[in-house]
Amino acid sequence: MRNIKLTIAYDGTNYCGWQIQNQDQKSKTKNFVSPACRQKLSIQGVLEKGLKQILREKVRVIGSGRTDAGVHALAQVANFKTTSRLQAEEISRALNASLPRDIRITEAGEVDSKFHSQFSAKSKIYRYLILNSQNSNPFLFKFTHQTAFSLNISLMAREARSLEGEHDFKSFSASGTNVKSTVRRIKNISLVAQRRFLPLGLGNKAGLIIVTIEADGFLYNMVRNIVGTLIDVGRGYFNEGDMRSILKAKNRQLAGRTAPAKGLYLCEVRYKRLIH
Amino acid sequence: MRNIKLTIAYDGTNYCGWQIQNQDQKSKTKNFVSPACRQKLSIQGVLEKGLKQILREKVRVIGSGRTDAGVHALAQVANFKTTSRLQAEEISRALNASLPRDIRITEAGEVDSKFHSQFSAKSKIYRYLILNSQNSNPFLFKFTHQTAFSLNISLMAREARSLEGEHDFKSFSASGTNVKSTVRRIKNISLVAQRRFLPLGLGNKAGLIIVTIEADGFLYNMVRNIVGTLIDVGRGYFNEGDMRSILKAKNRQLAGRTAPAKGLYLCEVRYKRLIH
Repeated sequence: MRNIKLTIAYDGTNYCGWQIQNQDQKSKTKNFVSPACRQKLSIQGVLEKGLKQILREKVRVIGSGRTDAGVHALAQVANFKTTSRLQAEEISRALNASLPRDIRITEAGEVDSKFHSQFSAKSKIYRYLILNSQNSNPFLFKFTHQTAFSLNISLMAREARSLEGEHDFKSFSASGTNVKSTVRRIKNISLVAQRRFLPLGLGNKAGLIIVTIEADGFLYNMVRNIVGTLIDVGRGYFNEGDMRSILKAKNRQLAGRTAPAKGLYLCEVRYKRLIH
Repeated sequence: MRNIKLTIAYDGTNYCGWQIQNQDQKSKTKNFVSPACRQKLSIQGVLEKGLKQILREKVRVIGSGRTDAGVHALAQVANFKTTSRLQAEEISRALNASLPRDIRITEAGEVDSKFHSQFSAKSKIYRYLILNSQNSNPFLFKFTHQTAFSLNISLMAREARSLEGEHDFKSFSASGTNVKSTVRRIKNISLVAQRRFLPLGLGNKAGLIIVTIEADGFLYNMVRNIVGTLIDVGRGYFNEGDMRSILKAKNRQLAGRTAPAKGLYLCEVRYKRLIH
């Protein structure tokens, strides 16, 4: 069996997320599946359907991890095993021809049989885009979380950096999720404001705030909870040092709101060199 | 009667253009109305419907000019006369609450009764976005024209600048349109490549090419024909000096293809100070 690795970019707006929602999975995760979501397709499902037609066999596409409804990806990674002799490039071209425009294969290649897009991952990078503008923007509406509040960017950046390192991120995890450990290591976290020329921005006062987090793993809603809390920092609800206090309290109630899915992007999945 | 001026941003993807397509107008411009377009709403129509509910009277919204199906606006300008005593700001707020998310009022104000968004305009600025990338991009798909060709940007920029000034732009006008004169004055034209950090770009090789044209008026499809020809310049189909030769020939057949609507933005409408 050959092992094919795909890199996928998608606009998650019209999907119920990465994962196929079958009846079994629905009953296990019923709290997270809204009725609207049930009618929508999953990215994984659309890929598997497209591959079945191209390869003439049923394959299981394994993603590096789930993304929720409305969450986007610049470079999700997935792999699947196949007996087909088609070159990876041919599969990618045929897939792009059949896929809807909001899902694009950006890279494809044959990899070692031991490569597993989830278990071989060393770290992941997520990015969150906040549009800080008085005017709501019709172009970036689906792709950013828009807020008109005046934000203290440098305080937000300092507080973001205070989360770097290995910590118990229970305060920033969705409550009620069952994971063995809520300890994760944030390798890098940055928050920058881009007030340079924005071709689709509106007005001189509009700016994009870009939060980028690399970690060895992420808890459910971790990035969205961190970003929601950072916005509260920027608005003045929290003060210098509060992110560390919230972290140490290990209590979700103390952190800020969950920022909306539409601003979140899975940016990159990093693997060990050997099996990449 | 009070005269209210609106500045409007819209994503034109799901509209048949600015102008209401009534039966009369359809028969006059039947070449330009596709069957798909007939089922779509116009921006003007959606605004008039919204205003009727807010003002409790029927108003005619006059735009600075039409934009075609799929063309976007960062700052279209329109005005309407009303007997309502509602403040412009209140009208704008109520309108934004009722309008779909892809149309946004970004400014509203009361202006001199002589202000006419079309006839008082001194010049207009259009922008065209070309995404130059090997990978097609699911986020910028509706908002840029994507091309994977390797383009000679500096030649494109020089050839673009050669169109500055007052000229007969017949070669860059849609054939078969009836206008008294095809002479227009391009006040400024620039073409720049933005290879800086693109939050929604994919890969290091992706770049955005931004063509900005200010003119006292535009012929039908003028910007899209200029951009289509500039892309052919960049690809090597045309050489140094060819834009001027095409211009002088006054023959649409010699210019390049019409670039797609989805990359085009009405950016700004400029007015004389006095009645602004």
